[in-house]
Amino acid sequence: MAQDSLWETPAAKTLRAEPGFELDQLDRNSTPGFTGNKADGERLLEERGAVLSDLQELLYANGRSGDSRSILLVLQGMDTAGKGGMVRHVIGHVDPLGVQHAAFGVPTEEEKQHHYLWRIKKALPRGGYLGVFDRSHYEDVLVVRVHDLVPEDVWSARYDEINQFEKELVDAGTTIVKVAMFVSLDEQKKRLEERLDRPDKYWKYNPGDVTERGLWPAYQQAYQAMLDKTSTEHAPWYVVPCDRKWYSRIAVTELLIDALEKLDLDWPPANFDIEAEKARLAQS
Amino acid sequence: MAQDSLWETPAAKTLRAEPGFELDQLDRNSTPGFTGNKADGERLLEERGAVLSDLQELLYANGRSGDSRSILLVLQGMDTAGKGGMVRHVIGHVDPLGVQHAAFGVPTEEEKQHHYLWRIKKALPRGGYLGVFDRSHYEDVLVVRVHDLVPEDVWSARYDEINQFEKELVDAGTTIVKVAMFVSLDEQKKRLEERLDRPDKYWKYNPGDVTERGLWPAYQQAYQAMLDKTSTEHAPWYVVPCDRKWYSRIAVTELLIDALEKLDLDWPPANFDIEAEKARLAQS
Repeated sequence: MAQDSLWETPAAKTLRAEPGFELDQLDRNSTPGFTGNKADGERLLEERGAVLSDLQELLYANGRSGDSRSILLVLQGMDTAGKGGMVRHVIGHVDPLGVQHAAFGVPTEEEKQHHYLWRIKKALPRGGYLGVFDRSHYEDVLVVRVHDLVPEDVWSARYDEINQFEKELVDAGTTIVKVAMFVSLDEQKKRLEERLDRPDKYWKYNPGDVTERGLWPAYQQAYQAMLDKTSTEHAPWYVVPCDRKWYSRIAVTELLIDALEKLDLDWPPANFDIEAEKARLAQS
Repeated sequence: MAQDSLWETPAAKTLRAEPGFELDQLDRNSTPGFTGNKADGERLLEERGAVLSDLQELLYANGRSGDSRSILLVLQGMDTAGKGGMVRHVIGHVDPLGVQHAAFGVPTEEEKQHHYLWRIKKALPRGGYLGVFDRSHYEDVLVVRVHDLVPEDVWSARYDEINQFEKELVDAGTTIVKVAMFVSLDEQKKRLEERLDRPDKYWKYNPGDVTERGLWPAYQQAYQAMLDKTSTEHAPWYVVPCDRKWYSRIAVTELLIDALEKLDLDWPPANFDIEAEKARLAQS
């Protein structure tokens, strides 16, 4: 089944955070643009995962041949939004060889000694690679803002700084796919309950997650500001409802496919004389 | 079907490079220890890949809970031996989140300014991670030896140094799974021919590969010396015939499963009061 028949509008169009977007109007259990059900979505994930994999191989091949372009997927969301599952079930379709994954938790002592973009710059994807950020520099206008970790004049200056930083990245050939993942308060509770009910999930549970739930309104406000101030032409945000994991996964798969297709990649031409090499090889 | 029924002896036992192993006696088209055919192997790869994935999640969970142990898969072999395919088809089964992949080609200018283990040490897996080295520090006793890139007294001292380095790694909690992948001269020719015949494979072709074929005997001698001198109790080599890709992939899957099972991992216990957290969550 062609994906066109199930997406009534492309994910990249439907999910893009346009000016005036209101986060508190978002139904986090919805499946914007998609007309299918969960079974359709799961089948589509396999089909489109294979397409994503083929496109990633093209990107990698071009990178090996000197193309400096890359893709950077930024996953930003509250605990339990499904960032880890996104890596496993979407990025898991592509060759691990071509993926650069980085997770940004509480900064280390060394990281704290540097500018907040220092650790980010070290982890940027090289040419031909698909970079994946599990959390990102946006932590520095989210948790940092909510917890007053730096004064307001410091964090409020970061939006422009981030826009500028991303502009330079884009100009240098990186397509940034920024995905804001939103789970509802109720669904988050269910997911945390599961972690407390299953011994194979205890390791994922962090008492701090419950503390953060108490700050939910402040976080929503910080996310709204982030979307308002940093959804730019060169690096727009995509807002993905995440109460249905299957939906969020096909949505991000489509966003990545869209970004890769726009690079208009083809197999790199031979940078050697094919017939001469065939003759050399035959004699070897 | 249980894997026991197709492996008449475990891969970790059959493939281990024991003292006196003679590389020139190795049939590179053979399937040591395995009684099944290609279809069996391909089915088994899926089954056992799922087992590998579960074990890797346990490793990762323990790493997140403070366990400093890790696994390091070292893939060493001539061009076309199938190192890239091994990453894709074996490591591709596990969560990309828990994999640290590093490829070691010709050293960069910066790397050349440092000791040959410098770039290796920077890429070692952290606790809980599965590290994958596509080529490794063994390049420094293989290509470097064959091409006389440093004097003999320099490279010949490296075997002991590598053994010592690996001993320290193992003592610190890393299980090193060293896989020497051997393809035959004829099969290599076929694989290179394919790269010259298919425009989607040109990017994988490097004229230098044909040059290296002319040095085949010297490489075999260097590999023999590597196996003789660095297959230690703490970090033995496993010799994997690679003319049949499906075999090499199930073999390495089993080697990784074996290494992970020996860690005797269980889900980490909760490091919080479960009932108290359930109460907090309910009220949140």
